[in-house]
Amino acid sequence: MSRIPLTAEELPVALASLPGWDVQGGKLHKSFKFKDFVTAMGWMVSVALEAEKLDHHPDWCNSWNKVRVDLWTHSAGAITELDVALARKMNALAGE
Amino acid sequence: MSRIPLTAEELPVALASLPGWDVQGGKLHKSFKFKDFVTAMGWMVSVALEAEKLDHHPDWCNSWNKVRVDLWTHSAGAITELDVALARKMNALAGE
Amino acid sequence: MSRIPLTAEELPVALASLPGWDVQGGKLHKSFKFKDFVTAMGWMVSVALEAEKLDHHPDWCNSWNKVRVDLWTHSAGAITELDVALARKMNALAGE
Amino acid sequence: MSRIPLTAEELPVALASLPGWDVQGGKLHKSFKFKDFVTAMGWMVSVALEAEKLDHHPDWCNSWNKVRVDLWTHSAGAITELDVALARKMNALAGE
Repeated sequence: MSRIPLTAEELPVALASLPGWDVQGGKLHKSFKFKDFVTAMGWMVSVALEAEKLDHHPDWCNSWNKVRVDLWTHSAGAITELDVALARKMNALAGE
Repeated sequence: MSRIPLTAEELPVALASLPGWDVQGGKLHKSFKFKDFVTAMGWMVSVALEAEKLDHHPDWCNSWNKVRVDLWTHSAGAITELDVALARKMNALAGE
Repeated sequence: MSRIPLTAEELPVALASLPGWDVQGGKLHKSFKFKDFVTAMGWMVSVALEAEKLDHHPDWCNSWNKVRVDLWTHSAGAITELDVALARKMNALAGE
Repeated sequence: MSRIPLTAEELPVALASLPGWDVQGGKLHKSFKFKDFVTAMGWMVSVALEAEKLDHHPDWCNSWNKVRVDLWTHSAGAITELDVALARKMNALAGE
């Protein structure tokens, strides 16, 4: 999967297919809210397996049932297809 | 929650409220099947948090998308309310 | 375990027994650094089991091999024994 | 990594480099014992990340602080380099 930055045309198209995500500070951002800590942690572990497989990892913060996520490709200095792929996995694993 | 064995009257009532569970070798048993390994592991971690909180742990075997579970209360030498409680959590976390 | 705020005398004593922790913005704070994402996630899951058992959860942010943690007792509006207990578990599980 | 079966010469060499592992029923086998359930689950999650990345998954059973593991390559009908690689990761993550 490409680490080439999304163009100014590609980014809004990608966002339109990613419910709940927007761009904050140049990064793909979403705040997930789960039923409780137990459900949030199960989701984080599933996401972690996908992230490690992609060799592409989120910046994420957890506080009980909430997980705030920022995705960005450090080596490209931009949002890339990899970020979109991981965001899509996160939504799917959250049942969205 | 009680570690007192379920009576011969209580056990079938409990089973009737636990879809997919039966008694095998004197233990509450169920085979869960998930979409894939990623989903199975997320579920196991959520269950693990509940189990540790109950201080009551399953005997379980994972093979890719499958998890076979046996529940039994060692100190009582029998199936107890604790096993029923953990089985119920497992179903709920599997969305059943 | 007590949700009573640590006194001005108790806090420095507690900190002295918690290598790597200090107070930032009124919260117990530490930045953990692991070998890689795989090790960081294993640690987070172990900590999550302890946190759920204590019914006391961290605010924490992960970025690959790093986990920044803030501990604070919301209901007390302060740092309490519960925070110290969870910090101690975190150090122990990190092998410190 | 190769899914080609280890030869009769290669298998004992591999075993000699894998403390605690032997062959049972044609599979690489080891019983791990941890301090408690919390530590066992942290290890399982770290191993799960490595397994998913290798696209090669263990058959494993957990009972509180114990995890019995069988490794085998289904598509090859034999023990292969992939099994040896995963066994090595498991030992490393258990600090062995």
